[in-house]
Amino acid sequence: MKSEGSEAGEDSKDSQPKGNRGISFLDFIMRIVAILGTLGSAIAMGTSNENLPSFKQFIRFKAEYKYLPTFTFFVVANGMVSAYLAVSLVLSILHIVMSGARITRVVLIFFDTVMMAFLTSGASAAAAIVYLAHKGNARANWIAICQQYNSFCDRASGSLVGSFIGVLVFLLLIILSALALSRN
Amino acid sequence: MKSEGSEAGEDSKDSQPKGNRGISFLDFIMRIVAILGTLGSAIAMGTSNENLPSFKQFIRFKAEYKYLPTFTFFVVANGMVSAYLAVSLVLSILHIVMSGARITRVVLIFFDTVMMAFLTSGASAAAAIVYLAHKGNARANWIAICQQYNSFCDRASGSLVGSFIGVLVFLLLIILSALALSRN
Repeated sequence: MKSEGSEAGEDSKDSQPKGNRGISFLDFIMRIVAILGTLGSAIAMGTSNENLPSFKQFIRFKAEYKYLPTFTFFVVANGMVSAYLAVSLVLSILHIVMSGARITRVVLIFFDTVMMAFLTSGASAAAAIVYLAHKGNARANWIAICQQYNSFCDRASGSLVGSFIGVLVFLLLIILSALALSRN
Repeated sequence: MKSEGSEAGEDSKDSQPKGNRGISFLDFIMRIVAILGTLGSAIAMGTSNENLPSFKQFIRFKAEYKYLPTFTFFVVANGMVSAYLAVSLVLSILHIVMSGARITRVVLIFFDTVMMAFLTSGASAAAAIVYLAHKGNARANWIAICQQYNSFCDRASGSLVGSFIGVLVFLLLIILSALALSRN
């Protein structure tokens, strides 16, 4: 990596933007992957609900994301981050065209980092609750609700995957932007 | 900001490292703040416990962080991040001396981003459980344990603060590194 960087530095100036153009193109593709992951997570959690049959006619046991504030936060975080990613595609395309840009790359690193923290926060808080729903906690007298609400729990657990893929993509996006900046 | 950047570009080369030296010095100070925050959080949560009086002689009700896996994760995450921050001071000092460094700044952005995600994850998961301990959840039949374990809950809630300060500092550290890279 180091030798590659120094070679690029010794070459003519044209070679650097070319390398950065490749990075910018990869940036664009990864943003699309992250949009799919986070939007998928928001939809999977947002549409999950389960009705349990009850012996009494007018009482229904229902599991839905909005009864757990942490899952609501998860849906909002994933929705907002996927919207941000869609908007950020504009800057990403700009960087493919103007691969020597600096200020906009710093701006993008800033917002990417904020959104990464936001997404990590939503995903981890939801994961803590999903873990509790699966395992329960005997000391705190919190029962494992997944034995009852099986399909709701499966959906909630599955929806974490897209969100954590989004976190990984953000990590790569920030590194790629930093690399592009260091080669400018 | 933009005009400042272009001015620096037009000035002699000496002015750039000077600006970056200021950034590197700020980076060093902020890492110390983050060490205090995360180490404080780890110790506050790690040493929290509460014994409740019981009518029966041989049964004791005890609240401790290790009975809740999420709080254990919180202590481990904060401990590891503060250790990482202590090690990263070496690179931070190196950047004060060699303010034109590029590769090491990219390396630092990479590890800072990973550690920020790790810390955010621990803090958010713990916050979800602290929220549950305070409010409970009627739908899931999870009772609010803070009415019983008052001092344990206060300690757990308080220990979140240092951790979230750490997350904020990481955000600033990543932006400062990106700024320094863009000015090199």
